[in-house]
Amino acid sequence: MSFQKPKGTQDLLPGIVEKWQYIEAKARDLCRRYHYKEIRTPIFEHTELFQRGVGETTDIVEKEMYTFLDKGGRHIALRPEGTAGVVRAYAENKLYAEPDVTKLYYIGPMFRYEQPQAGRYRQLHQFGVEAFGSTDPALDAEVIALGYSFYKEVGIRDVTVEINSVGTPEIRARFRQTLLNFLEPMRSELCKDCQNRMEKNPLRVLDCKVDQHRFAGAPELIDHLDEECAAHFEAVKQSLSAMNIPYRINPRLVRGLDYYTHTAFEYKAEGIGAIDTIGGGGRYNGLVGEIGGQDQPGVGLGLGLERTLLVLESQQADVPGAQPIDVYLVPMGDRAEREAVKLLFELRSAGIAAEKDYLQRKMKAQLKAADRSQARYVAILGEDELEQGVIALKEMATGEQQSVPLGELLSFLKSALG
Amino acid sequence: MSFQKPKGTQDLLPGIVEKWQYIEAKARDLCRRYHYKEIRTPIFEHTELFQRGVGETTDIVEKEMYTFLDKGGRHIALRPEGTAGVVRAYAENKLYAEPDVTKLYYIGPMFRYEQPQAGRYRQLHQFGVEAFGSTDPALDAEVIALGYSFYKEVGIRDVTVEINSVGTPEIRARFRQTLLNFLEPMRSELCKDCQNRMEKNPLRVLDCKVDQHRFAGAPELIDHLDEECAAHFEAVKQSLSAMNIPYRINPRLVRGLDYYTHTAFEYKAEGIGAIDTIGGGGRYNGLVGEIGGQDQPGVGLGLGLERTLLVLESQQADVPGAQPIDVYLVPMGDRAEREAVKLLFELRSAGIAAEKDYLQRKMKAQLKAADRSQARYVAILGEDELEQGVIALKEMATGEQQSVPLGELLSFLKSALG
Repeated sequence: MSFQKPKGTQDLLPGIVEKWQYIEAKARDLCRRYHYKEIRTPIFEHTELFQRGVGETTDIVEKEMYTFLDKGGRHIALRPEGTAGVVRAYAENKLYAEPDVTKLYYIGPMFRYEQPQAGRYRQLHQFGVEAFGSTDPALDAEVIALGYSFYKEVGIRDVTVEINSVGTPEIRARFRQTLLNFLEPMRSELCKDCQNRMEKNPLRVLDCKVDQHRFAGAPELIDHLDEECAAHFEAVKQSLSAMNIPYRINPRLVRGLDYYTHTAFEYKAEGIGAIDTIGGGGRYNGLVGEIGGQDQPGVGLGLGLERTLLVLESQQADVPGAQPIDVYLVPMGDRAEREAVKLLFELRSAGIAAEKDYLQRKMKAQLKAADRSQARYVAILGEDELEQGVIALKEMATGEQQSVPLGELLSFLKSALG
Repeated sequence: MSFQKPKGTQDLLPGIVEKWQYIEAKARDLCRRYHYKEIRTPIFEHTELFQRGVGETTDIVEKEMYTFLDKGGRHIALRPEGTAGVVRAYAENKLYAEPDVTKLYYIGPMFRYEQPQAGRYRQLHQFGVEAFGSTDPALDAEVIALGYSFYKEVGIRDVTVEINSVGTPEIRARFRQTLLNFLEPMRSELCKDCQNRMEKNPLRVLDCKVDQHRFAGAPELIDHLDEECAAHFEAVKQSLSAMNIPYRINPRLVRGLDYYTHTAFEYKAEGIGAIDTIGGGGRYNGLVGEIGGQDQPGVGLGLGLERTLLVLESQQADVPGAQPIDVYLVPMGDRAEREAVKLLFELRSAGIAAEKDYLQRKMKAQLKAADRSQARYVAILGEDELEQGVIALKEMATGEQQSVPLGELLSFLKSALG
């Protein structure tokens, strides 16, 4: 018998997993500096949450959800994205009752049943932040800045920020008609997806890659904003400029999800061939009311960690690998083996990364294993050393070797390793 | 509309999530010192993997799995435990081809459909390690030591280690008959579960809480070991003694899973009322062959993070909470607001945890918010300060206040915060 991982999933093994640890640690540290606190919501939720929270007409909900009936007959879905669960938790746990803006982040797996291809997995991983309780445009800019800083700090070059305002539901309803008037004459020439979107969500027609060339003269939502929306957008741009974050206005940017209001934004970078979207987000002032009863404004971003790593790789960025260990013990003989077990435990208990061989290998093979582990020191304990109560310590970088009393090995290594 | 989290799941919110971050950071640091590297396997696997790898007669697989058919008609299960997936990944990715012992750890969510009760959730979280490729009893002891150190270092008092040897499948097959001879006369008096187990896995009968009192004179597996098993067990005990790890031999300890060989162990601590099992593991020399084709010895442990936190709480252990932020900016007036946006970005980009108000609150309310955030410094920027190009900086612990040139705020804070 030989089992394989499910189609579209990955095993993250040592050698690769360190890159994940690296970008996640960056995300966590960035959130510490920006004062976003972690939230962990369940891996699955009631299916209806996503239908309501992400939008029934989105590909994610319509085609790609992992749904099942649990043993209690509940309609359950593995979460396809992070925002709906966080909004649900914010509302259910009444975090809006706290006096300050609620600033949350999440890192974790998401699930979409789609055809696996380069960079697309059925289990994917996202980092996102959500800020609730304020309509301040400076908060939109803060979220945009956080994502921009994330990409920069992990080492992605030439990230550009595209922003747009998608207005309010009322403005979009009015604009919908303006846009339909423009699209109607070309309806029969449009692709099937576009014809479908004309019924359900005409704004997303302008997103279409197939028909893009037809939309040069299309009316733009950004020209139909009311005063308040225009002022909000202006203030977001001012804040971005104050932070020296370069941005480009893209009036076609509407994002794949239905729930955005005012600000929508995306990050682009040259990576997998062409310039590609690597993350994005926006403001969603109606969503909390939709999901949780109590209406509260919100703004957030989400970005894919697989994609981040793909871009880092294609840009040949320098990402740290495995940490070397501090010391590799090489005991020779039964008595030394027992001493090594004790020593190993003491070193590790004192904070030192230490290893030994567990394959009864000869000295030469053990030294090779020490090399492979990139140990900074090798400590050899033979019968002679045991007799004298010392251990032979070799610093691998310099080749320098010295005899250290057994009882002083720990303090020696602690001061040598800083 | 108002959504709730699925039954038996939890939201880990700020205030609680820091405790999780704390014990996970401990686990990761411990694995660094013990030279175990992280592996991340998918959240779901083919159902058959768990039937084969965990055992079809276990409660976990028989009653508690989250199984579903995916859209491609595959039988999929949310992983109920961590070992089967790691063993599958070890085999599928041919990690056994590497020259050294493969030492892996995982931290993540697991899923069991059971009645929710105190400390039992449908989404639970485990930390575990698995070491493959060596039969060295010192490795069993290393794994036991790692778990013991984990509990000690996170702050649990009075952890005891119980160990046993469950022999080999051949020894267990012979012992099975010996045990059945003992049980047969009392068959009709045993509980239904026990009668069931007598057919499928008689060793687990001795585990039964209901019938425990009947088994005082039962034969013990530990008295029926062959020479090799006895020597292995002896060596494990010697290694534990060398490390000064207190242990107790419990000849009834067989663990809930079917796959153990030689060493089985559990950790117990006083926590939720009575002394309770808080984690455990063992050696499983047949499992890799069962799951992956290529036979390789293995040993590992798994422990529940929910349970760890419950015990910490009931022992009233001191667990760190939220990190305070470094500085809270209080701008007064429009110009200062804009300056604060810029300043905030600069501080955060330089590694400082900084925050401001996003609710257009008055100065007094902002100072209260700064207090709630436990900021070490508050920096007030009014029209007067702007005019003079300074910022009024107050250290909250001492109440000391001083005027710092705007351009020097960053370097001042960097040196003050160390």
